Amino acid sequence: MHEGKLSRGQLQAWALNRYYYQSIIPMKDALILSRATDPAFRRVWRKRIVDHDGQQGDDQRNGGILRWIKLAEATGLDRERVMRGHEVLPATRFIGNEYLNLVRTRPFLDCVASSLTELFSKDLITLRMEKLRQHYPWLDSALDYFEARLTEAPEDAAFAIQYVFDHAATRAEQESVIQALRDKCDILWAQLDALYFAYVEPGWPPPGAFRIKDEAKPIEANRG
Amino acid sequence: MHEGKLSRGQLQAWALNRYYYQSIIPMKDALILSRATDPAFRRVWRKRIVDHDGQQGDDQRNGGILRWIKLAEATGLDRERVMRGHEVLPATRFIGNEYLNLVRTRPFLDCVASSLTELFSKDLITLRMEKLRQHYPWLDSALDYFEARLTEAPEDAAFAIQYVFDHAATRAEQESVIQALRDKCDILWAQLDALYFAYVEPGWPPPGAFRIKDEAKPIEANRG
Repeated sequence: MHEGKLSRGQLQAWALNRYYYQSIIPMKDALILSRATDPAFRRVWRKRIVDHDGQQGDDQRNGGILRWIKLAEATGLDRERVMRGHEVLPATRFIGNEYLNLVRTRPFLDCVASSLTELFSKDLITLRMEKLRQHYPWLDSALDYFEARLTEAPEDAAFAIQYVFDHAATRAEQESVIQALRDKCDILWAQLDALYFAYVEPGWPPPGAFRIKDEAKPIEANRG
Repeated sequence: MHEGKLSRGQLQAWALNRYYYQSIIPMKDALILSRATDPAFRRVWRKRIVDHDGQQGDDQRNGGILRWIKLAEATGLDRERVMRGHEVLPATRFIGNEYLNLVRTRPFLDCVASSLTELFSKDLITLRMEKLRQHYPWLDSALDYFEARLTEAPEDAAFAIQYVFDHAATRAEQESVIQALRDKCDILWAQLDALYFAYVEPGWPPPGAFRIKDEAKPIEANRG
């Protein structure tokens, strides 16, 4: 992506699958909210849900999910097709379920820690916006999602790291929150590996998944 | 695999990850057992757990899990390494969790139907044993797992298909059990795709996962 090697179809596959991931994030945060016993914690954490789902009324504003749809539309996908999610990779669904399962079943502090991949997102998003603008200029007007995350993510991460720092008192708790962050990295990594497998190399989308249309590369008929 | 193209290291990766999958199957069946209200159903279904976990005492016999370990050992892996499961792909764990989740949360009849991939396993296992013997003769003495499944799987599948046939009364139930079987196929398919990605093409195992040793193919240092 950052080297400009992706076709429009590959960017569509990414946007479609990543939309599914985005769409479960507010549910993930609501599960954490549902397990938080401290109203002060809940008041801070609920901002994440507002950031993704947006706000209606006088102070109406779009949320991250609508911004992501705008990005997916800029790749050439229909909004309905993206929102239905019928064509996401099974691996994408499994990974979403894994993340929901993590915040449902693991110790509360681990759930908070699992969000800390955002500690690293400001630099990555800055680089990504620059590279997307450079290599895929037709996406230029649809990068609002990333623009918003540049300020939202560091705020969220600053709160979460402080909370984990204050509450992971024992060595066992500290090991546990580090493991939770590792597990979250595995989730994100497995998502990208599954996309790479299906749409780059060897380029075999499983039955029922989104297929790239109108591009030079033929879809392989035989599997090894 | 069936064309003899796999290296010993690739067969190790397959045996190691597939062991993890095998190891959760009795837990999956115990979850189904825990949801079955009919003792007659439970008496039949518990056979699956015995088949995998074996039996101690006078009528001692090994179960499928020990037989799979024997296969993994024949590829050159240590038993302890296989059983610890530390080096399985994160995708393998996610897929195991997905299957456990399915039998925990979906309608009971769907859980029974999800086992029906075994309807097709007799022909596949017959072919697989023939091909493994032909291309990887050093595995020949370690195929007891497959040998046992040749009789176990058809018995299990015959009961399950009859049960689903008798109980899926409405069109909605019939659609639902078909979807459950499709979802189970997605689970098995995603497992193979993740193995292919990590150990065949492009051949990028994620951090912490099993790595193939002592073979010609170098491990790529850079990701695209």
